[in-house]
Amino acid sequence: MSQFHIYNSYTRQKEQFESITPGHAGLYVCGPTVSGESHLGHARPYITFDVLQRYLKHLGYKVRYVRNVTDAGHFEEEGRVAEDKVSEKALLEKLEPMELVHKYTSLFHHGMRLFNCEEPSIEPTATGHIVEQISMIETIIGKGYAYEVNGSVYFDVAKYAAAYPYGKLSGRVLEDQLETTRELDGQDEKRNKADFALWKSAPPQHIMRWKSPWGEGFPGWHIECSAMSSKYLGVTFDIHGGGMDLQFPHHESEIAQSTVAHGHAPVRYWMHNNMITINGKKMGKSYNNVIKLSELFSGGHPLLAQPYHPMVVRFYILQTHYRSTLDFSNEALQAAERAFRRLWEAWEVLQKLDHPGNAAAGDKELDGKVTAWCNECADFMNDDMNTARVLANLFETAPVINGIKGGQIKTDALSAATINLLKETFQTYLLEILGMQPLQTQSTGKLDEVLSLLIEIRKEAKKRKDFTTSDQIRDKLAQAGIQLKDEKDGSVSYTVS
Amino acid sequence: MSQFHIYNSYTRQKEQFESITPGHAGLYVCGPTVSGESHLGHARPYITFDVLQRYLKHLGYKVRYVRNVTDAGHFEEEGRVAEDKVSEKALLEKLEPMELVHKYTSLFHHGMRLFNCEEPSIEPTATGHIVEQISMIETIIGKGYAYEVNGSVYFDVAKYAAAYPYGKLSGRVLEDQLETTRELDGQDEKRNKADFALWKSAPPQHIMRWKSPWGEGFPGWHIECSAMSSKYLGVTFDIHGGGMDLQFPHHESEIAQSTVAHGHAPVRYWMHNNMITINGKKMGKSYNNVIKLSELFSGGHPLLAQPYHPMVVRFYILQTHYRSTLDFSNEALQAAERAFRRLWEAWEVLQKLDHPGNAAAGDKELDGKVTAWCNECADFMNDDMNTARVLANLFETAPVINGIKGGQIKTDALSAATINLLKETFQTYLLEILGMQPLQTQSTGKLDEVLSLLIEIRKEAKKRKDFTTSDQIRDKLAQAGIQLKDEKDGSVSYTVS
Repeated sequence: MSQFHIYNSYTRQKEQFESITPGHAGLYVCGPTVSGESHLGHARPYITFDVLQRYLKHLGYKVRYVRNVTDAGHFEEEGRVAEDKVSEKALLEKLEPMELVHKYTSLFHHGMRLFNCEEPSIEPTATGHIVEQISMIETIIGKGYAYEVNGSVYFDVAKYAAAYPYGKLSGRVLEDQLETTRELDGQDEKRNKADFALWKSAPPQHIMRWKSPWGEGFPGWHIECSAMSSKYLGVTFDIHGGGMDLQFPHHESEIAQSTVAHGHAPVRYWMHNNMITINGKKMGKSYNNVIKLSELFSGGHPLLAQPYHPMVVRFYILQTHYRSTLDFSNEALQAAERAFRRLWEAWEVLQKLDHPGNAAAGDKELDGKVTAWCNECADFMNDDMNTARVLANLFETAPVINGIKGGQIKTDALSAATINLLKETFQTYLLEILGMQPLQTQSTGKLDEVLSLLIEIRKEAKKRKDFTTSDQIRDKLAQAGIQLKDEKDGSVSYTVS
Repeated sequence: MSQFHIYNSYTRQKEQFESITPGHAGLYVCGPTVSGESHLGHARPYITFDVLQRYLKHLGYKVRYVRNVTDAGHFEEEGRVAEDKVSEKALLEKLEPMELVHKYTSLFHHGMRLFNCEEPSIEPTATGHIVEQISMIETIIGKGYAYEVNGSVYFDVAKYAAAYPYGKLSGRVLEDQLETTRELDGQDEKRNKADFALWKSAPPQHIMRWKSPWGEGFPGWHIECSAMSSKYLGVTFDIHGGGMDLQFPHHESEIAQSTVAHGHAPVRYWMHNNMITINGKKMGKSYNNVIKLSELFSGGHPLLAQPYHPMVVRFYILQTHYRSTLDFSNEALQAAERAFRRLWEAWEVLQKLDHPGNAAAGDKELDGKVTAWCNECADFMNDDMNTARVLANLFETAPVINGIKGGQIKTDALSAATINLLKETFQTYLLEILGMQPLQTQSTGKLDEVLSLLIEIRKEAKKRKDFTTSDQIRDKLAQAGIQLKDEKDGSVSYTVS
């Protein structure tokens, strides 16, 4: 495809991407809830939409990428018990939710750096946008689609569904939702079970609380994304991304809130990545297969046979199209590691490959194939971001690269232009768009080991009076900025400058 | 001193530190204004108060360390021109202040990591606490110490000064302040020139704006710290830190605001670090000597003769007591680098030092000296955190350590217990409390250089049929996880696992 097409989850078809403001693209992605450490399930959306924003930049768009941090709302309800029941206790002795927020946000950022995910342009927090959320709730009440009960405010889903198409994104019908809604307490306050909270009155033991027109409370889960996306991207923006599990109720509720507040749907293109399974099972606490990112990188989870490098995980995720399910297993990750090493080695060989002489291709058929593999990468990315096929094409070129180096393929089989195209394709697609980096070589520790070895070799050379070798080692190391020093006790130390 | 004493800038004397809540210590430090990149002037307070929170932890306190990020208030006024004057333009085409906030916050965090400053427990933002600031302003108005004019709210300094001791922290008297106040526009709205804004009405071109009881606007500079410190540390908390330049008007205003709102002074101990000068001159744009952190680390500023490692800067700062002025010059930093290398080398030697045999000291006088140097470290830290004297004592021990290694001092001169005390002192004071780390050796690149050298040596050994050496190199490298591979073209490649 010569233009960028996106599968729009809302219309359920691939559509050509056209941004609202020419030359600019606005992207909102639902970020982490920082009530705990991020896990493997979080890796996929953030890597997927990192590639999307990289690709949009590659296409020449100025991208504003907004990814929120949920640090309030449904925060305390999901397992974390407020510990300030003894209200006479000094403030410092109490659990302060914002300490946990800071800790887990910081860990999340660390994980994103390891995955080589570029930072979003703005990372707004729910607690940082209470004013905006209250303001939007007031608008929704003013338009008659929300009601207050006992200091809480609920969105009137039944009334909304009667006036607007509700459930289109998630493919649900109102009647089915009575059982599936995972709403907070307060069912008896609602007019309808499908209604959801925009604002919750804070019970006395609730620590996170803000003043509002309806008394002290805290925002519901969904309103933050509507308030923050419209603030930073506008009341209609280009792309909203997130995991498929967020389609309902979260994204459906976002659409309802924004449609009432602004009079029209908020998003042009909805994009959802599919889920990760582990050894064929859904991730979940009951399966004991929720692998935290730190466990993934250290190998510290019973299901893991070894640590996995963040780049191996990134590579594995991008080897599958984002809308397909993806199963994690030790075998699959180990295979991904081998594949990635092979591909990266080809890239390192390729960088040093020079064309010997005349510009024409010695093997026109092969030259044509390689050219096609390179050129198809753009088509694959344009076809709903098919990173899997991009990687497959890069793999096709690896035997050619290795063949030229190994002598099985003549050095002039490809034209100079094709070798350059190949280099550019790796640089652009593998490094810049897919964001791959070499596996860290843990070289810090290795340097010490290698230097010890060199010092030993030098010692033995001296013993056998081979001063050529011993001096050569000392001098060459000095050139590399490493000073050997013969200590009085016979040992040799070194300083690296 | 056997107890921790702090010089309290408010009382102008050293006082024994006693925390309000036993076992807990609350610390608030004024953080960066993220309208631009952090510079050298920011390094000192954050390194100073990092050492403070490390020391409080060392003393057994559970520390809640709150350091804010100023991302609103006096933000847009300081040089950054709002660019959304053309209001018809699409939102995405406009400057979004929060993009800059994200960029500079992220750069600041990066700098703090390089300085090995531990993260604060909570890092609240001004824009994230609009509700709390509005609420506090309402309280101050309710108590009669603030007034609204045209949608802005001002603190009535004259009225406050008549009722409370004003100016004690900064040593200023009200009459002197007519000229020095660096307030925003709106002088004609104030009853008194010394009054300061709690809330400013936003002119139409002002992008950062929030709804308030006084119309759309944004908070004044000082109110955020009062609102956030009381929220997270309580209405009276232990320690407030910051640079001396913040005493007036910022900290003086914080005291006034909190005293009115809560009926008493907010802070038990005020701590202020002294300023950094550059080649004897105050830092300032007019001197063209504002060195950004990135320039400091890269050497990319006309005043810098070379790049300076973040650990060298940290070391240099801690070599001077935090209440003394500190002059930056290339000579001083180069000397600090040499000194730090020497001290770190002594630490590396010390770690390998074993006591040869019997436990008693062979040189009682020297043993007594070393013991005293070690024990004094606690006294120096307790004496208003005198990191300069701690480092001086550690330096005293370096010739002893080197002397033992070099043979000038007998290996049993110190008792086994003293050698252990020495090791513990370095570990506790140099590493844990002062937070020093080894200079990075840039070993990644070095490893490649050293491996090339080894490959070359092996090649020459093979040439002269010295297969013992060539095999030894291959095998030892394999043990270190480095695989050599003889390529068909005669070159040797390697993989590091």
